[in-house]
Amino acid sequence: MRPKIYLFGDSITEESFGDSGWGATLAHHFSRTVDVVLRGYSGYNTRWALKVFERVFPPDAGAGEGDEPLAATVFFGANDACLPDRCSAFQHVPLDEYKQNLRSLVSAFQKRWPNALVLLITPPPIDEVARLKFPYVESPDGLPERTNKAAGAYAEACVIVAKECGVPYVNLWTKMQEFPNWETAYLSDGLHLTPAGNRIVFEEVVIKLKDSGLCLENFSVDLPLISEIDPNDPLKAFE
Amino acid sequence: MRPKIYLFGDSITEESFGDSGWGATLAHHFSRTVDVVLRGYSGYNTRWALKVFERVFPPDAGAGEGDEPLAATVFFGANDACLPDRCSAFQHVPLDEYKQNLRSLVSAFQKRWPNALVLLITPPPIDEVARLKFPYVESPDGLPERTNKAAGAYAEACVIVAKECGVPYVNLWTKMQEFPNWETAYLSDGLHLTPAGNRIVFEEVVIKLKDSGLCLENFSVDLPLISEIDPNDPLKAFE
Repeated sequence: MRPKIYLFGDSITEESFGDSGWGATLAHHFSRTVDVVLRGYSGYNTRWALKVFERVFPPDAGAGEGDEPLAATVFFGANDACLPDRCSAFQHVPLDEYKQNLRSLVSAFQKRWPNALVLLITPPPIDEVARLKFPYVESPDGLPERTNKAAGAYAEACVIVAKECGVPYVNLWTKMQEFPNWETAYLSDGLHLTPAGNRIVFEEVVIKLKDSGLCLENFSVDLPLISEIDPNDPLKAFE
Repeated sequence: MRPKIYLFGDSITEESFGDSGWGATLAHHFSRTVDVVLRGYSGYNTRWALKVFERVFPPDAGAGEGDEPLAATVFFGANDACLPDRCSAFQHVPLDEYKQNLRSLVSAFQKRWPNALVLLITPPPIDEVARLKFPYVESPDGLPERTNKAAGAYAEACVIVAKECGVPYVNLWTKMQEFPNWETAYLSDGLHLTPAGNRIVFEEVVIKLKDSGLCLENFSVDLPLISEIDPNDPLKAFE
């Protein structure tokens, strides 16, 4: 059976198989070696993610050990960071609870699959101007439902939890803001990703997986590559 | 467990999770409902596909019935149609054997999974001018390894087998040639697909799946959509 990597997260994960999406690009990168399995849930925060963990990853889904994935990305926080007094308040999770929920999610994965790598990804930065143009819920007070400052606090909390738990992380909030024009280069609506933004997530995830030994060079291709097939005796490769 | 659709084929399947790829777009289309699982093998013909069928779909991989996919696309023929006297002759499979191999592949799926839909896809048309510019093996005689006429014969054979077996099919060879400039609009190197070519495969596959009842309206979303969550009592949705 081909090994798996799960992508667990919110809309930025759910949309990751769209055009130039980071999830699809990861599946393409690992074609012939690893199945990249999409488990994205638009709008979800860590509180709801914890509630549904057992349903997303049912204990009896696989035949035991063979079902253990190589890794899972855990990419929540963009919704937790909605401000509690603005128009998407119902998605808000307080910062301390967010940290505790992330710890619980990491534990849940580690308990289920002790050998699987858990990779935390922080929320991206927020472009508040664009959020007002593309709100999920109309803002009655003319203020955006998310701010970049709040997203930054959740990103920092995510990094703290990753370090505490000893798991790798991608600090997307910091990484994206290293580049000029990140607001429009990487974000399509102040929150979700452009093709270039998707590219950054893909590259950072590949780097972190590789740091933990999860890279193409270490995986075996399941069947002969065309380049390994002898043109004079093709069937030999399939004996 | 979320239901699955397998994509089994050659490089046009293996590359289907690349940029704007038809496989990734299908996975995106079915996000929250179906896992689209990539089983593409560049360069493979139906003879080799038959040889590896049991390894690609191991009988003991799943826990019995729950493992049965909703559908599998079977998309071979572009390599079988390489001409027997040209530079990619080692991939060639005679037309009669191609038909027999396709029948055997359909049977193998139906024997393994009696309720799964098998969807045959014909090879695409070939732009011979482009094939000379982008050969896999250098052509010593200045002739392309594939011709559009040969691809058409294999496409016709694929349709005949589909009708014989009573399974749906996508006639890509015919469909693409309905449009002007198909050579460059849909093919990037005379054989593989451009984003627009990928779009056609995606659309045709979605139409054929829908004809067999495999469409979003008939699938249940695994967990509450954000639009179904009551902002005044979000946790109610997760009870």
